[in-house]
Amino acid sequence: MAVHVHIVTPVVPTGLTSASDFEGILGPEDRITFQEIENGVPSVETELDEVLAAPETVARAIEAEASGADAVVIDCFCDPALRAARECLTIPVLGPGETSMNMACILGHRFSVLSVTKNMSARFADKARVCGAWGSYVSTRSVEVPVTELSDARSDLDAKLLKAALLALAEDGADTLVLGCTGMLGLADTLSAALANEGWEVPVIDPIPITIRLAKSLVDMRLSHSKRFLPRPTQKKISGFSHSAFEMLHKLRQD
Amino acid sequence: MAVHVHIVTPVVPTGLTSASDFEGILGPEDRITFQEIENGVPSVETELDEVLAAPETVARAIEAEASGADAVVIDCFCDPALRAARECLTIPVLGPGETSMNMACILGHRFSVLSVTKNMSARFADKARVCGAWGSYVSTRSVEVPVTELSDARSDLDAKLLKAALLALAEDGADTLVLGCTGMLGLADTLSAALANEGWEVPVIDPIPITIRLAKSLVDMRLSHSKRFLPRPTQKKISGFSHSAFEMLHKLRQD
Amino acid sequence: MAVHVHIVTPVVPTGLTSASDFEGILGPEDRITFQEIENGVPSVETELDEVLAAPETVARAIEAEASGADAVVIDCFCDPALRAARECLTIPVLGPGETSMNMACILGHRFSVLSVTKNMSARFADKARVCGAWGSYVSTRSVEVPVTELSDARSDLDAKLLKAALLALAEDGADTLVLGCTGMLGLADTLSAALANEGWEVPVIDPIPITIRLAKSLVDMRLSHSKRFLPRPTQKKISGFSHSAFEMLHKLRQD
Amino acid sequence: MAVHVHIVTPVVPTGLTSASDFEGILGPEDRITFQEIENGVPSVETELDEVLAAPETVARAIEAEASGADAVVIDCFCDPALRAARECLTIPVLGPGETSMNMACILGHRFSVLSVTKNMSARFADKARVCGAWGSYVSTRSVEVPVTELSDARSDLDAKLLKAALLALAEDGADTLVLGCTGMLGLADTLSAALANEGWEVPVIDPIPITIRLAKSLVDMRLSHSKRFLPRPTQKKISGFSHSAFEMLHKLRQD
Amino acid sequence: MAVHVHIVTPVVPTGLTSASDFEGILGPEDRITFQEIENGVPSVETELDEVLAAPETVARAIEAEASGADAVVIDCFCDPALRAARECLTIPVLGPGETSMNMACILGHRFSVLSVTKNMSARFADKARVCGAWGSYVSTRSVEVPVTELSDARSDLDAKLLKAALLALAEDGADTLVLGCTGMLGLADTLSAALANEGWEVPVIDPIPITIRLAKSLVDMRLSHSKRFLPRPTQKKISGFSHSAFEMLHKLRQD
Amino acid sequence: MAVHVHIVTPVVPTGLTSASDFEGILGPEDRITFQEIENGVPSVETELDEVLAAPETVARAIEAEASGADAVVIDCFCDPALRAARECLTIPVLGPGETSMNMACILGHRFSVLSVTKNMSARFADKARVCGAWGSYVSTRSVEVPVTELSDARSDLDAKLLKAALLALAEDGADTLVLGCTGMLGLADTLSAALANEGWEVPVIDPIPITIRLAKSLVDMRLSHSKRFLPRPTQKKISGFSHSAFEMLHKLRQD
Repeated sequence: MAVHVHIVTPVVPTGLTSASDFEGILGPEDRITFQEIENGVPSVETELDEVLAAPETVARAIEAEASGADAVVIDCFCDPALRAARECLTIPVLGPGETSMNMACILGHRFSVLSVTKNMSARFADKARVCGAWGSYVSTRSVEVPVTELSDARSDLDAKLLKAALLALAEDGADTLVLGCTGMLGLADTLSAALANEGWEVPVIDPIPITIRLAKSLVDMRLSHSKRFLPRPTQKKISGFSHSAFEMLHKLRQD
Repeated sequence: MAVHVHIVTPVVPTGLTSASDFEGILGPEDRITFQEIENGVPSVETELDEVLAAPETVARAIEAEASGADAVVIDCFCDPALRAARECLTIPVLGPGETSMNMACILGHRFSVLSVTKNMSARFADKARVCGAWGSYVSTRSVEVPVTELSDARSDLDAKLLKAALLALAEDGADTLVLGCTGMLGLADTLSAALANEGWEVPVIDPIPITIRLAKSLVDMRLSHSKRFLPRPTQKKISGFSHSAFEMLHKLRQD
Repeated sequence: MAVHVHIVTPVVPTGLTSASDFEGILGPEDRITFQEIENGVPSVETELDEVLAAPETVARAIEAEASGADAVVIDCFCDPALRAARECLTIPVLGPGETSMNMACILGHRFSVLSVTKNMSARFADKARVCGAWGSYVSTRSVEVPVTELSDARSDLDAKLLKAALLALAEDGADTLVLGCTGMLGLADTLSAALANEGWEVPVIDPIPITIRLAKSLVDMRLSHSKRFLPRPTQKKISGFSHSAFEMLHKLRQD
Repeated sequence: MAVHVHIVTPVVPTGLTSASDFEGILGPEDRITFQEIENGVPSVETELDEVLAAPETVARAIEAEASGADAVVIDCFCDPALRAARECLTIPVLGPGETSMNMACILGHRFSVLSVTKNMSARFADKARVCGAWGSYVSTRSVEVPVTELSDARSDLDAKLLKAALLALAEDGADTLVLGCTGMLGLADTLSAALANEGWEVPVIDPIPITIRLAKSLVDMRLSHSKRFLPRPTQKKISGFSHSAFEMLHKLRQD
Repeated sequence: MAVHVHIVTPVVPTGLTSASDFEGILGPEDRITFQEIENGVPSVETELDEVLAAPETVARAIEAEASGADAVVIDCFCDPALRAARECLTIPVLGPGETSMNMACILGHRFSVLSVTKNMSARFADKARVCGAWGSYVSTRSVEVPVTELSDARSDLDAKLLKAALLALAEDGADTLVLGCTGMLGLADTLSAALANEGWEVPVIDPIPITIRLAKSLVDMRLSHSKRFLPRPTQKKISGFSHSAFEMLHKLRQD
Repeated sequence: MAVHVHIVTPVVPTGLTSASDFEGILGPEDRITFQEIENGVPSVETELDEVLAAPETVARAIEAEASGADAVVIDCFCDPALRAARECLTIPVLGPGETSMNMACILGHRFSVLSVTKNMSARFADKARVCGAWGSYVSTRSVEVPVTELSDARSDLDAKLLKAALLALAEDGADTLVLGCTGMLGLADTLSAALANEGWEVPVIDPIPITIRLAKSLVDMRLSHSKRFLPRPTQKKISGFSHSAFEMLHKLRQD
């Protein structure tokens, strides 16, 4: 079954992400579309960033469902607006943070997240607590490279990831690793090979590819997130947000 | 010490809240100011509501600190934007949800929250998980009255609260209750008396009065939230949000 | 990429499972093979059943890898021999129990398992504890139909599943359901529709289809279970088990 | 509202504590009284110390309520006899240990306690477990200075506290600190400043001031501890304890 | 090896307990001595009762070790003064509460405690939390008979225990039961038989016999409680407690 | 009461274990019998080893009950087949792993296991999770000596155990130790003395002696494991396992 997955990258365009990043993740019959937002910040690293990115992220997700997408993926490990989007949509909405953490529970016994900056530790611990993966969460280790410098720092980044990974494995006892930023797309194989060189046979989860694949699988199986957990909001007057998407939401609700 | 607490009520004005609601909570030498927002929704009940209320709530909190307030309280049990505001501010920022839950841990052994609607159960459970109060959280029981109808329903509301409270006590084994909506301001005494009539001597926490009092106490003691947990965001270009507050944030950061 | 998933159904043949059960789960280019065991019992319901099914299940998994399979799925919600098979194999080995539970964490906030018999509750609670899904596990409800009577009882089974599901939703507060027996393959849609009729919009996870799809996704991404968690056993003399697979294991280890 | 808080310091007088220690914590209209015990030990550091301090501590608390106090604070981080006193009293009884730990949950995400001696670690961990603060408790670090030497060691103590604090922050990942002995009264500001010098912006909670302020706030709001959790004891013959307070308790119960 | 176990029953004599209660629990070569206290209350049901019973209980335990006992058992499910006595003694000190709860973890998967009164639920939950048995603790159900009326109520008591047990089994899902009062000594067999009659094959743990047997086993194996957890208190001036035992403690410490 | 405890050592004979190992653990009137298995491996270290050892271990346990034994002990810290054997037997079946962990909860506050190899850490953590001892489990430290080399390595082993123990105490904060392999029988005293020399007064639990003593105590008290937790399996055709024990099981069930 041909599936259309729409990706909302919840940052204002910086040139770091492009449609080609997602090529080849699904089959030739499937379609992946991709969209950044206009209202927000160039990278999501703080709670403030999430707050600013969230409204339009929800709006774009609503539009995607209205336009016929089969599933939506929010392209940020922090999963901004994930629950709000799930309230508004019937098709599956997935965040790579929650998805990867639970996938790590399947592949191993103790997982660590490799984040861009240290201040994410508390949030990732909380994410593990609220998405059911707390039992296997061990730690967050960081490379201390801001998201927007990830591509410039590529030469250093592999080394920094390796160092963070080794700390997670040797100090924290992790046996499974999760890349904690979707801006690290494509770095899992290099890290995995470098770790194997040092004698560590552990899976390294690249969040976006596994999340997009799960999105397709859910569509195939006609499964979506629980509406009992996150029911559709009743209609309310929304002030100050002009996105037509929210009007769309009202209309959809009237059906 | 005279203290100025600024309250941000994260909803667009509906007439439900007014400055007089907060009179008498602090001493005559203290000052409580209050402000609603222009961009958002009339009540915060869903994740979508939080997403829409959050950006301006942060902006108003930033402005309050810039204007010399000593502490900020976000007047909603869901604590929208609490962590983002804490990132941006140095003065204490308190949310009545997290504050009340931890206060309930001090007063009793097992607490339940009495919410407006059932769909809040999962979020309140998660709030307890991430604010350290999980060990004493028991359940959320709801009155099934939307926030904006709370004042109309006042005649019924006391009875519905009593019924929800009795279920929390008798079925869930709670020994301490928390009103789970700041729109229930002032209803604790009636509920408490009604419960005493039925033989239950349990504290009923009204979130806003206890939160404002704690805000003053923190100012008195020169204590604030941990900046290691929520460090100040580095400067970023913010698109699409015209609030001068965010520019202020940048300027403050340059100092 | 064409993928070959081998399924080991850890029971002696009873006619309940056949290769056609798995048709259509993957794409036309993929290959699903299926095999029951000769040494064991006709259904896995108890700890004793798992003990008897485990040795040959591991052997068959080893043979599958040696024969070129890309992934192995153990076709029983109890996941017998899952960890032992993961020790012996490098290709991904998945159990539908652990996989479904963690998938339920992605789709909802509180999941219940619908099992064949009540005595499975403790084991499923323990499975949730050790596979990282404990934070979202709520309860196990049962239909009280032995596995081998599942197909005969089909007329009643839908009604019994609905009843168990309603108890999980209304009494235990579940918002996501997992069919707790791979012998219930194909029953999720009917249950899901019946629940929707009663006003419950909740996902019902059918363990085998989601597990096989994940197996393919893992192969696509060159990911497997953590070998740090479950390293390859060192060579030992095995007495009393004549399966050539174990000899194969020794030989593979010598490479 | 003028409030009278009575403080029971559960040690035999050593000259370490005096009424002036509590001056200025509440407003000029409020009254703080203070009393040590005659039967017990000079400092509470062990379980044995708590056992010996507890009977008279309860008696003094009962007397305080009978004499018209509005709230009682037990001036020891171990909270000896806290629950027994709560059983006997209707007015709020607070212990600085439980209170500070839950306050730490409000101000940060991960708190550590700085204790006098190492042997308190297990007890403080248990305190966090039973007072609802377990979710944010991280560790106990100690200065290894016995309580009765705290004032002599003052020159060293600041340095030792700083060292313990830095271990809690750097090794244990704490973001909030709690002074784990009421004999450390007044040391939070120095520690806080020293930590800021080293780049750590974290709150340091001084247990007694925050506890006394909360006591006043509770009185203001007519809130007290849950009597369902700790109901009033039925009358029993008490042998060997001559305190008139226990007779008072009987009389009060007859009312 | 002949073992001498000394039992301290931490209540003032009421005639409910006598030396003959413990006959036959150990072998003919072993010796069980028994002693009540003079300062305290006739039964331990509340936190206040524990506070009043604790000082002399410790003193009697110290004397027992000094007189050559091999182990001490505190004959009350609340385990009053257990940790303080462990600080002071080198020989094993056991409490039936902690011991039975951990024994229940060995025999089953989910245990409930059958207590005399409801107000013990919170304390027993906390006991399970701090003694390592939390993972299997399910609930406390009560017969609502005060300890001192247990023997008068014997005719009713069996019926009330059965009722409480059935609630624990059917409502709470317990599979193992613990008698939550040492005053229920000898009632396990009757309850067990009555439950078997109703089709429930579950162990019912009688706390004192299992605790005394473990005490002997520990002595046989030269094992005792951890002194790292509860180190010997340093010498302090004790005011107001005339028991020579505390002086003994000082002397013992000087050796 | 004279008790007969049957020990099943779930490995094929290697000469490491002999009947004399168990002499003196019970009284002269008691009887300890011992038996190894024919189908399995020479040592149990991996999940694969457990899978291969389990079927005959259950069979031998069934036979022991049929032959009149009063209790069965499975002589391996991994407790292979423990739950399956408990399903099949009415007399108590104990595993030294679960038993020792819960005993450690009685003796201390934080226990560590000293295992033969590192790969056991995840399994022992899981064992603590499912046997109720999770609240006190701290870590597993290993000596990195394979089971079958334990006796050859005896000269080194004491030193390696001491080193692992010191890490558990100093790095992990353990206050109680458990030998994590029944092949370490008899090594507790030496380790305990060596630790005392270094100033650590902590109990070291030798799993088999404590388990055998508890088995006798359970028999004395007519207590056994919960059949509600692990009910007797219904009759099923067993293929490929010729042990007459399984036929016996069927016959016993018919009674």
